[in-house]
Amino acid sequence: MNERVLGYIAEHQAAFLEELKGYLRFASVSADSQFRDQTLHCAQHTADLMCDAGLTEVQIFETDGFPVVYGELMSDPSRPTVLIYGHYDVQPPDPLDLWVSGPFEPEVRDGYLFARGVSDDKGQIFCHLKAIQAWLKTTGTLPVNVKVIIEGEEEVGSPNLLPFLEKHTDLLKADLALVSDTPMLGKGQPSICTSLRGLVYVEVTAKGVGGDLHSGQHGGAVPNAITGLVSVLSRLKDENGHVTIPGFYEDVQVLSAAQRQAVAALTHSDTEYMASIGATALTGETGYSTLERRWYRPTLDINGIWGGYMGEGSKTVIPNLAHAKFSMRLVANQNPLQILEALRAYLPTLAPAGITLTLSTHTEAAFPAAVDPSHYAVKAGLKALEQAFGVPAVLQGEGGTIPVIADFKRVLGLPTVLMGFNLPDDNIHAPNERFLLANFFGGIEASAYFLNGLHPTPNPSPFPMGIERGA
Amino acid sequence: MNERVLGYIAEHQAAFLEELKGYLRFASVSADSQFRDQTLHCAQHTADLMCDAGLTEVQIFETDGFPVVYGELMSDPSRPTVLIYGHYDVQPPDPLDLWVSGPFEPEVRDGYLFARGVSDDKGQIFCHLKAIQAWLKTTGTLPVNVKVIIEGEEEVGSPNLLPFLEKHTDLLKADLALVSDTPMLGKGQPSICTSLRGLVYVEVTAKGVGGDLHSGQHGGAVPNAITGLVSVLSRLKDENGHVTIPGFYEDVQVLSAAQRQAVAALTHSDTEYMASIGATALTGETGYSTLERRWYRPTLDINGIWGGYMGEGSKTVIPNLAHAKFSMRLVANQNPLQILEALRAYLPTLAPAGITLTLSTHTEAAFPAAVDPSHYAVKAGLKALEQAFGVPAVLQGEGGTIPVIADFKRVLGLPTVLMGFNLPDDNIHAPNERFLLANFFGGIEASAYFLNGLHPTPNPSPFPMGIERGA
Repeated sequence: MNERVLGYIAEHQAAFLEELKGYLRFASVSADSQFRDQTLHCAQHTADLMCDAGLTEVQIFETDGFPVVYGELMSDPSRPTVLIYGHYDVQPPDPLDLWVSGPFEPEVRDGYLFARGVSDDKGQIFCHLKAIQAWLKTTGTLPVNVKVIIEGEEEVGSPNLLPFLEKHTDLLKADLALVSDTPMLGKGQPSICTSLRGLVYVEVTAKGVGGDLHSGQHGGAVPNAITGLVSVLSRLKDENGHVTIPGFYEDVQVLSAAQRQAVAALTHSDTEYMASIGATALTGETGYSTLERRWYRPTLDINGIWGGYMGEGSKTVIPNLAHAKFSMRLVANQNPLQILEALRAYLPTLAPAGITLTLSTHTEAAFPAAVDPSHYAVKAGLKALEQAFGVPAVLQGEGGTIPVIADFKRVLGLPTVLMGFNLPDDNIHAPNERFLLANFFGGIEASAYFLNGLHPTPNPSPFPMGIERGA
Repeated sequence: MNERVLGYIAEHQAAFLEELKGYLRFASVSADSQFRDQTLHCAQHTADLMCDAGLTEVQIFETDGFPVVYGELMSDPSRPTVLIYGHYDVQPPDPLDLWVSGPFEPEVRDGYLFARGVSDDKGQIFCHLKAIQAWLKTTGTLPVNVKVIIEGEEEVGSPNLLPFLEKHTDLLKADLALVSDTPMLGKGQPSICTSLRGLVYVEVTAKGVGGDLHSGQHGGAVPNAITGLVSVLSRLKDENGHVTIPGFYEDVQVLSAAQRQAVAALTHSDTEYMASIGATALTGETGYSTLERRWYRPTLDINGIWGGYMGEGSKTVIPNLAHAKFSMRLVANQNPLQILEALRAYLPTLAPAGITLTLSTHTEAAFPAAVDPSHYAVKAGLKALEQAFGVPAVLQGEGGTIPVIADFKRVLGLPTVLMGFNLPDDNIHAPNERFLLANFFGGIEASAYFLNGLHPTPNPSPFPMGIERGA
C-alpha cells in the first residue's frame, strides 16, 4: 500500500508536471490590479486542484481582497490534524526583458522548471496536494487529518489573512501547521527551518529650521537636518554592531550551546558567501558567526535615506528636512510592539540641538517565530526529508519574516513545520524564477512520508512505508 | 563743482529710476537658453549705458558664453585706477506665480523697486555708472581712473571670466577693484565687507556589496552602504563642531582681538536671528559667536543625501549604494585645492569594513578672500558710505562665496572693496526681488564720494566735496 503511494507518485511525474504548468499559466499577481481577473481565476483553479486531490468541503472564502481557498480530509479524529498553508498569488514579473522564457509560459531547462511563482509558492503547494492525491487514490484515506488553506495575498502582506484566522478558529482547529515557503539550506541539503525573524519598519523625519537656507550665508551656525539625521542614525548601533535601543536585547532567546554547535556543523563558507553577494568584507555583531547573525540574532538596517539637493551638479543649501527608512529584524521572544515603543522613547534622546524627529510606521509590525526543534512534528519532518532525498536533513533558521507563522501560534496555538523544497538561488521575486524538478518530485514524496510519519507518541503509523532510500 | 555732482544726482533721480527700469526689462537669464537673445540684447544695452555715462573704449568682448562688456575713463595716470565689476545677467524668475508684479515689469511699491535683478546686480551697477556720469557731466573728468567690466555669466558660476581676466591682464591693470554685489549689514547700516568664504563642494558615493540585498535574509551580516555613508559623514565634524579633516585649520587666519571686538560691537541678536530662520537652536563651533561662525570660521555642511528605497511604504532592502553631497566653506588663508587633497586622503580612513568610497567634484573649488581693513580704499569706502548715508559705516564679513574676488587678487593682484547697497532681505534669487530706492540713490552718492575720496596718500582730492550730511 505504501509502496503503492510511492509508485503512484513515480508513475504520475509527467502528469504532475503538466498540471503544474497549467497552474503557473495564471498570472496571479496580487499587487497589480490589471491581473485581478487572472488572480480570481487562479483561486477557482486552486479549488479545482483540491477537489482533484480528493479533498472535501472545498470552499472559496471571500475576503476584503483575494479569496482564501479551503479544503480538508478528516480521516480519523484520533489522529493528528495538519493545517497546510500556502499561497496562489505571485510576485510581479518585472523586469520582463530579463526573462529567458515568459514568466507565465512555463518551460523546463537544465532540470529546472522556469516560471513566476514556481518556487514561491505554486510548485510547493503542488507537492502537498499531489502527496494527498497519491494517498487518497491508492489507499482511499490519509494517515492523518489535513486542512488546507491557500491564500491569494501573501505577496502583498496578507492583509486579510489574520482576520480570516480569527474568524475561523474552529474550522482551522489543528495540531500543527505545515508550510513550504522557505528554501532548503542548499542543493542536496534538505532542512527544516525552526526560526523566523520578526520585523519593525519605520520612517524618521528630521526637521531643522523653517526652510532651506543658503549654506554660505548661514553655514556653521544653524542646525542642518541631514547632519542631524546622520548623527541620530550613526548612533543606533555601537562599534560592536549592537543595537543601542534600551532594552532591545532583553527578551532575546539566548542561543544554547547545542544550537550553536548545530549551526557550526552546517556547510557554510564565509568566503563563498562573500563571493555570492559581491562583498569585500562581512560585518555584524561581534561574537556571532555569519549564520547566527543572519538567523538567530536581531539587527537593524537603514533601508533608505533622502534629503536636500539630490540633482546633478551642486546646490549650496542647508536642508531643513531629511528622511530615512530603517527596520529591525527581531528574534524570539522580542515583541515588535514593545521594541517600537522603546524606539519611540529613545529616538528623541539622540536628536541634536535644534533638530526635531518624527517617527512613522508603514508596515504592521511582525512577530518573530520559533519552533521547538524537539517537537515530534519537526522530528517527523527531518525523517521524511531524509527518506525522500536520501541524505540527512538539518535544522536551520531564516532571517526573513513570514508573519503568518507567528499568527498561527498566537491565534490558533499551532507550531509550524517549515519544510521548504526550493533552493536559495531559485530567483524568487526576480526574473527567471525556477524550481528544481528533482526537488518538486522529492517534495511530493517528502510530504507523503511526512503525513505518514506524524505521530505524537511512539505508536506506529497505520501505513508503514516500505521503501527506504539513501545511504 | 562737487556740489554740482551731488546736485546732478539729486536732479536726475527720476530719470535714473526710469533708465534702471528699462535695464530691468531685459530678461537676461543666463541659466536658461530660452532667454539667450534677451541676454545678448542686455549686453548691448550695458555697452550703451557705459557710453551714456561718458566712458570711452567701450567694447563687447565675446567669450565662449555671454560677452563681457568693458569701458574706461583714464583721467590722470598719476591717480589710482579702480576696476569696477558687476554682472548684467540675472537669476531665473521661477516660481512666477509668487511675484506680485512681473519679474521683468519693474514696479515701485512702498519705497522699493521690484524686479528680477534689481538688487543682484543691475541696480548696483547703475549706482556706479550714474556716479561716473554725474562726475563727467558736471566736471568733465573723474577724480580717479576707472575701468568697468560687466559680465553676463555670474549667475551660472562665471565659467568664462577667469580666462578673460588671464587674457586681458594689461587692459585690466588697476590699483583696486570695487564690487557692489553683497548686502549691507541691515537697513540704515551701511558696511564694507572685508571677508568672503571659499568653497569646496564634493559628492561621495559609498558602495557596499554587488547589488541590493534582502534585509531579512542578509541583515546583520553584510555591509550596508547607507550605514557606511552615515558613519563616514557623522565623523566629519567632532562634538565641538570642529571639522576633523587633518590640517583643515592649519592656514586659517586667527581672528584678532580687535576683529572680535568689532564683530561683537555690531547690532546682532541671536534670538532675532533664530526667529528669522525658524530655528529652535543655533549650533556650531564652540568658542565663537554666531556672526564669527558665519563669516570668519570655516565649516562643513551636508547639502544632499540619497540612497536605498525612497518611495512610499516599505521595501526591505539592504542598499548597496548611497550618495551624499557636502561642502566646506573656507576662510583666508585656506587653499581649497589643498583642502580637497586632504579630504581625498582622509575619507578612505573613515570607511567602515566592506564599504568603498568614491569622491567626485562638480564645482570648481573657490578660494576665500580677505581684504586688509586698514587698506586706504577700505577706509575711503567707509567714509564715502558715511557721507552718503549719514551714519557711520561698519566692517563685516560674508559667509558666501564670490569666486571672482579671489581671482582679482590671484590673477590681477587687486584688493577688492566690497561696497554693497542692497539689504539682506531684498529677496535675491527669490520671487519679489527688490531694491530700496533710498539705497539706490544713496548708492549713487556713495560711489561719487568714493571715487573722490580714493587716494593712497594724504593728498587731498582735486575735488573737495562740499556737502556733508548726517549727525
